Amino acid sequence: MNIDINKLNRIVGEKNVSTDLADLYVYSSDASVHHAMPAVIIRPETTDEVQRIMRYANREKIPITPRGAGSGTSGHAVPIDGGIVLDLKRMNKILKISPEDMLVKVQPGVVDDDLNRSLQPYGLFYPPAPASSRIATIGGEIAANASGVRSVKYGATRDYVLGMKVVLANGDLINLGSNTRVHSSGYQLERLIVGSEGTLGVIVEATMRIQPVPKYRCLAVAKFDKLEDAGNAISDIISSGTNPSMLELMDSIGIVAVNNAMNLGLPEVGAIILFEADGNVKEAVDYEIKKMKSICEKHKGFGIEMSYDSTERQKLFGGRKKLFASLSKYKQGIVCTDLADDMGVPNSKIAEATKKIHEIAKKNNVIMAVYGHCGSGVIHTKIMLDSAKKSQWDDAEHVIEELYDYVHSIGGVTSAEHGIGLSKAPAWKKARPDLIPVMRAIKKALDPNNILNPHKLMDAPDDWIRATKLRYRVEL
Amino acid sequence: MNIDINKLNRIVGEKNVSTDLADLYVYSSDASVHHAMPAVIIRPETTDEVQRIMRYANREKIPITPRGAGSGTSGHAVPIDGGIVLDLKRMNKILKISPEDMLVKVQPGVVDDDLNRSLQPYGLFYPPAPASSRIATIGGEIAANASGVRSVKYGATRDYVLGMKVVLANGDLINLGSNTRVHSSGYQLERLIVGSEGTLGVIVEATMRIQPVPKYRCLAVAKFDKLEDAGNAISDIISSGTNPSMLELMDSIGIVAVNNAMNLGLPEVGAIILFEADGNVKEAVDYEIKKMKSICEKHKGFGIEMSYDSTERQKLFGGRKKLFASLSKYKQGIVCTDLADDMGVPNSKIAEATKKIHEIAKKNNVIMAVYGHCGSGVIHTKIMLDSAKKSQWDDAEHVIEELYDYVHSIGGVTSAEHGIGLSKAPAWKKARPDLIPVMRAIKKALDPNNILNPHKLMDAPDDWIRATKLRYRVEL
Repeated sequence: MNIDINKLNRIVGEKNVSTDLADLYVYSSDASVHHAMPAVIIRPETTDEVQRIMRYANREKIPITPRGAGSGTSGHAVPIDGGIVLDLKRMNKILKISPEDMLVKVQPGVVDDDLNRSLQPYGLFYPPAPASSRIATIGGEIAANASGVRSVKYGATRDYVLGMKVVLANGDLINLGSNTRVHSSGYQLERLIVGSEGTLGVIVEATMRIQPVPKYRCLAVAKFDKLEDAGNAISDIISSGTNPSMLELMDSIGIVAVNNAMNLGLPEVGAIILFEADGNVKEAVDYEIKKMKSICEKHKGFGIEMSYDSTERQKLFGGRKKLFASLSKYKQGIVCTDLADDMGVPNSKIAEATKKIHEIAKKNNVIMAVYGHCGSGVIHTKIMLDSAKKSQWDDAEHVIEELYDYVHSIGGVTSAEHGIGLSKAPAWKKARPDLIPVMRAIKKALDPNNILNPHKLMDAPDDWIRATKLRYRVEL
Repeated sequence: MNIDINKLNRIVGEKNVSTDLADLYVYSSDASVHHAMPAVIIRPETTDEVQRIMRYANREKIPITPRGAGSGTSGHAVPIDGGIVLDLKRMNKILKISPEDMLVKVQPGVVDDDLNRSLQPYGLFYPPAPASSRIATIGGEIAANASGVRSVKYGATRDYVLGMKVVLANGDLINLGSNTRVHSSGYQLERLIVGSEGTLGVIVEATMRIQPVPKYRCLAVAKFDKLEDAGNAISDIISSGTNPSMLELMDSIGIVAVNNAMNLGLPEVGAIILFEADGNVKEAVDYEIKKMKSICEKHKGFGIEMSYDSTERQKLFGGRKKLFASLSKYKQGIVCTDLADDMGVPNSKIAEATKKIHEIAKKNNVIMAVYGHCGSGVIHTKIMLDSAKKSQWDDAEHVIEELYDYVHSIGGVTSAEHGIGLSKAPAWKKARPDLIPVMRAIKKALDPNNILNPHKLMDAPDDWIRATKLRYRVEL
């Protein structure tokens, strides 16, 4: 592959093209375990520039990996075939905030928290918010179909995408969707692009639905001696028709990690549930909170604290918000890897699944935290291991295989909100072989030269652990 | 095209295959203006039968038009190329009601109202409900991305599809989606199938999200002298962050039609707005209703009546529910045609659009009612004309062209909830030429022999009025 840097310079200007080794190294990984060097980084600012880059890459058959913040956990932004990394962070304009039409129009590089800060004066918010909202871009969130802590009530990114402008592999610009809450005008291509992980097109503009900020939010925390009781409480809350705006689980490993990292002094119990309700009328919020409290108590939840106050709420939520970052502090010499990190399991199986995860981890000599947005079926785990030891990676490999076989056997899915990328591809392909030819056919129809984020998802290598180098000092 | 009836008899049994002229005639039209005769009707009962039919049709390149209730308004189920009509109404089993996982699994022929009746004992409901819910099937609703009166709060069918089993053109069965609120495991193909109007595959099973029935529903009716005031009230209700569970408009033509048909004695004012709020706490419902009432009053709404009582609510809603059926009674000798029937316009343009619709109708010598789920941007219209007169069809053609040019110029879409089919295809293709090659590429990837509902949507003829015969006694 021969990339004409001068050509790229002419499109975006020299200062927005880099072949500097330090830059390439930064762009060689994301939040996953993977590492692969690109040949060049290019930072377009306009749709026209993206179109010209795509036309060039398509003609020369150069792989292009679109990239937002690089906060993806499964290798979406790791350029496994080298080539060009298309950094979209310069396309970070909020083009329109329309309270009249209850929507925003944004460029793909807009950061989630920045968008929400801009919406605040209008009393509006954009509900999907991954834990990485401080850095994650809307384009990246669309590509992964991100959801986050409020998905139990508000749904995932796919539920907020109204429209989109997308540059196809051949450089053509298409305009998808509508400016309305509903539409039935042709294939819902904007929803096909959601979760397609940069393999079908480059999102250059998105029209997203927004929501009024509720006047009242009440957050509560319940403690449990047994993880299983907490899991059953979550299932009961959902199946009883309660309407939480957040319903989070955190196991004992998570609690210890947060205490070690932040010195929060949380009680080191078996599990914690965080539950929130929101609304414009306090009586209605009280009603939901009371119902959830009583379900928690039925399942031996205790020490339940709650608050409507924003500062108090942030304190209660503090541990959960920092959980992912804290996990690396769980134990000396152990790192936290983003592997098997976000399975989706049916609501009725939450308790069983959390128990099973701990069992599988123990059997295979790794530590796994269990936490996440269990109210919407999302169970987060991280595999904590000694990354310098080859044997620990073998252990992780076994855990992942066993865990996904279990998750699929109970009607769950490989990924609930982070995507498949590289590391989850083998497990997902094993579970869903019927989808592979269909996805390949669609990919080929839209990207016949296979230049857009090639060798991801259905085309990812079958051995995740050796698919790329790992970004750890270990030779496998 | 040579169809081997014996072959079909062997797949589904003789009594489920028909070439009887009376049957073929019934299946030659749906709720649209179109009419085209199929060669044979086949009524499968199992997925395996559907797979065998598809394999046969694909091998012999025989057009297949999947059909639910035939209540579509744009010609989706009209077999423009003849061939086989695949009647899915025998596949009408509710396979699973799971309050534990807040989902149902249904076959495509399950009728919407039947599903909701089955959910009632559980205190649950399936929110998307077109006006035709008494006959419309879930499979058809998915194919059209139907929404209905509660879409303003609850969204469209696309927001409720969790998973799906689909038989592809080649007879392969694929299993899409998840049993969870969110998922990010491969392309969201289940959402691509939504709204694809039977052109990409045959839905043989669907997993749909369900919701708890709220304890309280309060419905209110406000009258307005001017349609424009009513339109502005709707825009204000939405942009003020109110959360109606229904927000409907009905213009003076609709009111007269309902009075003529049902003798309801509604006051013949310029417009009526119906607004509803729901929830588990009465104070919260009161809050929303009060807010909407005051916005209506600000825009000169008067005579506001409201009720929490189910019988009273049905009475208030009676006129709206029967509006579509009543429109044919508006005036002697005039029929109501499903043309330009469901544009989607941005919330801020509701008042302007309703006014414009009446202007365009008047200018072109037809009568158009304006009503619909305006809270979610859906404006329903029907064109009422003397169907025996050739010139009236020319008038309709002009109206449609002018109307859609206007709708697209204000950022609206051709169809909000009924789909494109045949009659809306020319307008939609004119507005969205960029989508046609992409949709064709996807169609070709999934249905290379073009057997599934061919010549609809992006492949529909450019002249809707002569695309098929019309189901009226007129020669154009």
